[in-house]
Parts: sequence; C-alpha cells; structure tokens
Amino acid sequence: MKLSFRWFGNDDLVTLENIRQIPNMNGIVSAIYSIPVGEVWPVEQIKEMKQKIENNGLNLGVIESVPVHEDIKLGNSNRDQWIENYKQTILNLSECGIQTICYNFMPVFDWTRTTLHHLNSDGSTSLALSTEELKKLDPLDESLSLPGWDESYDKDKLKDILKQYSTVDEEKLWENLTYFLEAIIPVAEKAQVNMAIHPDDPPYSIFGLPRIIKDKESYARLFQLSSSSANGITFCTGSLGANPYNNLYEMLDEYLSLGKVHFMHVRNILLHKDKSFEETAHVSNYGSIDMVRILSLLKKHQYTGYLRPDHGRMIFKESGRPGYGLYDRALGASYLNGIWETLS
Amino acid sequence: MKLSFRWFGNDDLVTLENIRQIPNMNGIVSAIYSIPVGEVWPVEQIKEMKQKIENNGLNLGVIESVPVHEDIKLGNSNRDQWIENYKQTILNLSECGIQTICYNFMPVFDWTRTTLHHLNSDGSTSLALSTEELKKLDPLDESLSLPGWDESYDKDKLKDILKQYSTVDEEKLWENLTYFLEAIIPVAEKAQVNMAIHPDDPPYSIFGLPRIIKDKESYARLFQLSSSSANGITFCTGSLGANPYNNLYEMLDEYLSLGKVHFMHVRNILLHKDKSFEETAHVSNYGSIDMVRILSLLKKHQYTGYLRPDHGRMIFKESGRPGYGLYDRALGASYLNGIWETLS
Repeated sequence: MKLSFRWFGNDDLVTLENIRQIPNMNGIVSAIYSIPVGEVWPVEQIKEMKQKIENNGLNLGVIESVPVHEDIKLGNSNRDQWIENYKQTILNLSECGIQTICYNFMPVFDWTRTTLHHLNSDGSTSLALSTEELKKLDPLDESLSLPGWDESYDKDKLKDILKQYSTVDEEKLWENLTYFLEAIIPVAEKAQVNMAIHPDDPPYSIFGLPRIIKDKESYARLFQLSSSSANGITFCTGSLGANPYNNLYEMLDEYLSLGKVHFMHVRNILLHKDKSFEETAHVSNYGSIDMVRILSLLKKHQYTGYLRPDHGRMIFKESGRPGYGLYDRALGASYLNGIWETLS
Repeated sequence: MKLSFRWFGNDDLVTLENIRQIPNMNGIVSAIYSIPVGEVWPVEQIKEMKQKIENNGLNLGVIESVPVHEDIKLGNSNRDQWIENYKQTILNLSECGIQTICYNFMPVFDWTRTTLHHLNSDGSTSLALSTEELKKLDPLDESLSLPGWDESYDKDKLKDILKQYSTVDEEKLWENLTYFLEAIIPVAEKAQVNMAIHPDDPPYSIFGLPRIIKDKESYARLFQLSSSSANGITFCTGSLGANPYNNLYEMLDEYLSLGKVHFMHVRNILLHKDKSFEETAHVSNYGSIDMVRILSLLKKHQYTGYLRPDHGRMIFKESGRPGYGLYDRALGASYLNGIWETLS
C-alpha cells in the first residue's frame, strides 16, 4: 500500500509543502484542472505538474480524474473524436510515467450531497446527504450550487443536457460504457496504464439520471466487458458504503483477488436507516465502516497500489474546499498509518 | 487506555475547541501555571479550570505537573512548609476529582534540548539534543534561554541555586526524594490520588546536576521507597528512550505488571550513536521506538490510565510553543488511535 493525498494543483490552499510533512506520505493524486473536458492533455503540461510535485519530494502517483465527455456517456454521434482524444491522453500520461488513471461514468453530476456544512457535535463540519432533502432538490433551480455539479454548464445548457439524458436508461448507459471501454482498454493495456473507474456517489440514481457502477452486480458486469487488468476500479469505501446492501468487505476481498483494484479511496460515513449519511472522521467508531477490516484485506492480498484518505471534516477552524481541507485528511492518513503498521 | 492532550491553559494558542475535534480525544492534561512553585492550589481555581474544560466537552484527566519546590529537592531546612503545601494541593485536587498527578524531581532544569528548531528533511522542525553541543552550554550564559529552563530565576539566583546543588549528589537527592515521598504518599493514597513521577529528560546528568529517575535501577529503588500504588510513574517513551541501554519494552512490561504506570507519554526520537537525538513524528519508522510494541504492552496489561501524544514537530507552518503545536500532536493521536483499534 502506498499512501497518497489528493492535490488540486497550484490553486489548492493545501500546498505540496504541507502534504509532504504528513508521515509516510509520498504520493500525489492530481489532475490538470485547466484543460476543458475532452481535450487532449499535452505531454508538456503533464511533465510540468509532475516536476513541480517531484521538486517537493513527492511523486505523482495517480491521475484523478481524466473526465469522460458527456457525448461519450450519452453515446452521441460525435463521441469518436472525444474517445480518440481520451486515448491520446492515456498515451501522453503513460509517456510521463503514469500507471493509474481514475475516472467515472456518472452522468452530469459527480458526487452529490445536500449540505457541505453539516455541524457535528464537536463543532467540526462535514458533507452530508439527506435522502429527504435530495428528493426536494431541483438541479435546474437557479440558486442551487453544490459540489460535484459541473459548473461548466449554465442552467440552459444543463436543461439541454438533462433532456438528452431522458432517452438514456441504465441499459443504454452500459452500452455507452462498453463502447468506450472497448476503445480505450486495449490502448491502456498496451501503454501499461490501469484504468480505475470510480463508483457512483451516492450509489443510486439521482434526479432520474441513470447510475450503473454501484453494487456487486455492476462490478460483475463491468469485469465481463474486459478481462484485461487495465479494466480496473477505484474502490471507494465511502461511496459504496452509502448503500447498506453493499457488503464492502466481501466485495473488496473478491475484487482484490481478481487483481481489479488499482486505487483505494478510504473514508468513513455514518449511515442512517433511510440511507441518509454524514461523512465522519476516518476512525471506525465514528462511522459505519470498519477501517481495520478494510486495511486487513489490503494486507491479506498484499495490495501494492495507491490509497488515499478521502474527504475529511473541516476541523481546527480551517476553511477551504469542502471535504478537501488539510487537517482532517492528514489525521486520516495518520490513523491509516497506525492501522497499517500494526497489521504488518 | 484513555487518550488525552496537554493544554497550557487560557494562554495556549491551541484551544480546547480545537482539541475536542481530534477523534476519540476526551482527556485534558493541564495545570494552573499562574500559581508560584510551592504555593497551595486553591480549590476554586482548580474548579474553574475543570469547568472550562468540561464546558468544551472534555474532561480534566491528569494534572501535569504540580512542581516540587527546589527547597524540597535540595533538602533545605524550610522544606517542611513546602511539603505541607504540596499535601494540601493533593487534597484540593482530590476534592475536585483528580486522580493522577504528574511531577518530576529534576534539579533546576526540566527537559533540556540544544535546539528547538532542528530542520527535518520534509521542512518541518523539531526539538533536538546534540550531546556535543550540550557539553558546550553554560547555564549561566546570559544570552541562553531554552525550554525547561526555569524562568523564575534570573542569572544571579540561578548561580546561587546551582551553588546550593554543589553539595547534593545523587545519593543526597535520593534521600530528599525519600523524605518527600514518605510525607506525601500516605496523603495521596488516602485521597485516592496516584502520584506519577516523570523520568529525567534526558535521562542522565546535565551541567553536573544529579539526576536519579533514568533507568531500571532508578525504578527498582523508587518502588522500594513505597509499595503503595500511589507511588507510581509517568512512563515517557521519549525521555527513557534517549538512553540506549534502557530496554523500554521490558521496563514497561514490568512496571505495568506491578501496577505502577499511571500515565503514558508517547513520542518518538531518532537516537544516534553518541546519544544525540532528534524528536520525530510519532510513527515508528521515523524514529528509534516501536510504537506498536509499546501499545501492545498497554493492551496486554489492559491499561486503563491516560495516555497522551507527546511533543510533536512543527508542521504546516504552525508557530507556537516548541513541541506543543496542535497539528503534529493531533497526527500522533490519530496514529495511536489506529494502532489501538487494530490491537483490539
């Protein structure tokens, strides 16, 4: 297991100088955020980012994410050009030494919560999702802005794209994912890059949009699409854990044994009966997920890939990108250090 | 094991609001720093501090320290009054529900280092002791000021007190400790308060002053003075670990089995061949101490006392009291959480 930390580039309030001071932290998970979705990532820009990270005593371990253009997810007639671009980006990243790319196939919205500032009893705040609140949310409400909502769309564009999705059900989305993977996996395999699809977060349909990477059945179908190890996954405990029917430990055990897990996102949530949840501190007794059990499985399968502490609470009066402050994620990393060392 | 955190009172830049946000952190280790050494701690002031801590969702677990007046350590003829005061302070603390008092019996200087700002390769800084540098230090040098140096003395007073110690060798210091313990231990025992002597730091003579709580032989002798469990110890991994001949694990195992360990200070140091050391991050692979082994012994003996992460590095551009910043101690606590949970 190699410990890593997400960094949002030069604009991130959390600096590389800070990240490298977290014990045993070597890997950086990042992306080039300035490149429009779908465009090819130029080798020069990748190298520049990589160099900056290495100048700070760290290494660029994982790209999270290379986003997939909506035309690909929609299966629009112009998707082939976007797919060609995606292939070229894989090749360019490979040329720069990248071996793992995280991506997702969620229509329009990435991870979704109903509040970014849930107040915990210790005065910290965290992201939370209320299923009741979620039902009331209208993505076309002008005043609404939540993380994971693609800000590259204005409301008119959003209306248009939601309309396009009205003919895309889960089956159609699977077809479009299949088409995409059939094109890119052979390229990734040849370039020795592991593609690691991130589960949908939350792992069920929102706003009537289809979501397909969410449970045991999803993964069985995904792995049937291509047996190549390049067709792998990011196992995200917090995302998958938001469905009480997902047995995280059985799933992880199986996917590790299949060699399909290329990247680990580790965070904890406190899951309620109605599937609402709050994100908590990483430690097991704060949430619903048994972290020692998760890491024991990684140890059992001698997992050598990257793992990162995922969303943290906002603590110590920090302000910044919700879920991605420095302090609680650093506490999470240290806690995981303690578990990992004890399991050794 | 109960996790705790040192707090230096209202002037501490690290606030109780911050401390309570560290996962599983319930206990506070503190003292009333405004009371002159030797004076009785009034019940009202203790209650005020306790209340403030409880108002922040924490509890006052350990007093660190009730300092011992130099007249007691020197065995001066006026020591009895200071000892009477000390007894009364024990009773007053007991009345407020305190069950553990940390103290030390180091002449003049508490913990001593040669630099507070050793630069680590990750850009963090930490306390360090160079045995070569220590030899060159003159405590009477006007320009010198280091932590652990009692600032209640000016240089003339310091000169005077060092002169008084010229007739106090280790044997004499043992006599004076014996006299002190014979007076206070019965009082502490009756009041159900555990006294927990802190080892000398570093655990050897400095500036020609005697130091007596430093190794296996010290503890054997200490425990012979009184078999009462009120005559106990603070086991400090960092202090005792600075003597390469101390086998921390054997010592801790034995003292736990004797019921003598009432408080744990857990920190790591990187010890060099000449006994110089730097304080490091808590994680085992950063220093010379095996933290999993330490906590395994606590688990083995079902230790139910308080433990605190000790000195941290200065990380994340924090400035403040050297060794006692918020961030690296919080990382230490989280790391210890991970170990403890995994051992469960």
